[in-house]
Amino acid sequence: MNILAIDTSSLNASCAVLCSGVLTGEFSICNKKTHSQMLMPMLDDVLKKASMSIEDIDIFAPCIGPGSFTGLRIGIAAAKALCQARGKKIIGISALDSLAQNIAFSDKIVCPIMDARRGDVYNALYKNGEKIASERAVSLDELLSELDGKETVFTGDGVFAYREKIAEKMGKFAYFAPPMHMLSRASSIAYLAEKKAENGEFDDYHTILPVYLRTCQAEREYNERMKEFKTN
Amino acid sequence: MNILAIDTSSLNASCAVLCSGVLTGEFSICNKKTHSQMLMPMLDDVLKKASMSIEDIDIFAPCIGPGSFTGLRIGIAAAKALCQARGKKIIGISALDSLAQNIAFSDKIVCPIMDARRGDVYNALYKNGEKIASERAVSLDELLSELDGKETVFTGDGVFAYREKIAEKMGKFAYFAPPMHMLSRASSIAYLAEKKAENGEFDDYHTILPVYLRTCQAEREYNERMKEFKTN
Repeated sequence: MNILAIDTSSLNASCAVLCSGVLTGEFSICNKKTHSQMLMPMLDDVLKKASMSIEDIDIFAPCIGPGSFTGLRIGIAAAKALCQARGKKIIGISALDSLAQNIAFSDKIVCPIMDARRGDVYNALYKNGEKIASERAVSLDELLSELDGKETVFTGDGVFAYREKIAEKMGKFAYFAPPMHMLSRASSIAYLAEKKAENGEFDDYHTILPVYLRTCQAEREYNERMKEFKTN
Repeated sequence: MNILAIDTSSLNASCAVLCSGVLTGEFSICNKKTHSQMLMPMLDDVLKKASMSIEDIDIFAPCIGPGSFTGLRIGIAAAKALCQARGKKIIGISALDSLAQNIAFSDKIVCPIMDARRGDVYNALYKNGEKIASERAVSLDELLSELDGKETVFTGDGVFAYREKIAEKMGKFAYFAPPMHMLSRASSIAYLAEKKAENGEFDDYHTILPVYLRTCQAEREYNERMKEFKTN
């Protein structure tokens, strides 16, 4: 089973090919270039260097979020188009489940955080491979109160924005992933998709959607205006 | 501080750019093509996609082994040449120290194994970030006796060859890294080189050498013949 995974949920653009449980190739770039410029050439390149073509792929596995709204749309649209054009299968994977895989075999709480702006982070909590708190957009302050006194490993791009604040508030209970375990990786998406495929848990490329966890600014403004409109 | 790391110690060819603690880019390919074909185009590509050039790199960090003799020579020769041509610094990093970084924040023993052929593996042992057994070429049987009854996470390409044997002998005490934590990563080399650079621990590009941990076949045969020659 050959899986091509795509992660464009954060600043990091990442794609990976997993062939029968072996990571044949993975390219990741955390640059300021937009994912729409980076993604397709990277996909093409990783396949060529792995001596493979799109035809060899059985399953496309995009990251479905949470994360950058535009980033997610780019990755999911690319995966949907490739699936439809080639008649292949699709499996969407959570950005937070994927980030949690960066820290394997730890007995500490694993806490991926992605910057959701305005003091909020997208987050879920994991311990011994189990998800112990569901995905949410939560204020960092609220999250840190919840974790008070518990040994916790932080990973994800939210750490770039909030490292000092976390260290100050949690002291010796806060651990930070080293750089190679800080960013999202398409190989983790591929690994989780492989496990789902083994259980027959496929998505449908017609109906798969990004998971934003909250409404975007345009929607919020529209809803505000509609409320005003109805009141007047 | 910008570090370009190269790992060609195993089947996996990997290069990474670490810029002031942020992993800007990493490309890894585990294909049957030789590292001499893969490495330089990959280096060029990761720098271009990271909007950087060789001139922006302060430190070149090759993996110095143990591992594939030919692979190591390719990676170290490339790093030495780039350092000398550009007047940059070099820091060599152990393949086993790097592999151990795949499993972060675990309280289990971390046991990287690299296939050294004829039933042997290159190995060292780590616990809570400390190296608890030195680098060696050891028979797998001897290693497994040493680990008997201890919770151990295995990583490294030696697992491809010996997974079943390990599982059979160690039972529930053996854990295996998932695919994304199974192979060597240049980003781990870069991270360890950054820590050494912060302590002023640089190598010299004139004198840096691969660490083979044992004599190669040609040397063994030469030594045998010299022994015969002296006896006669």
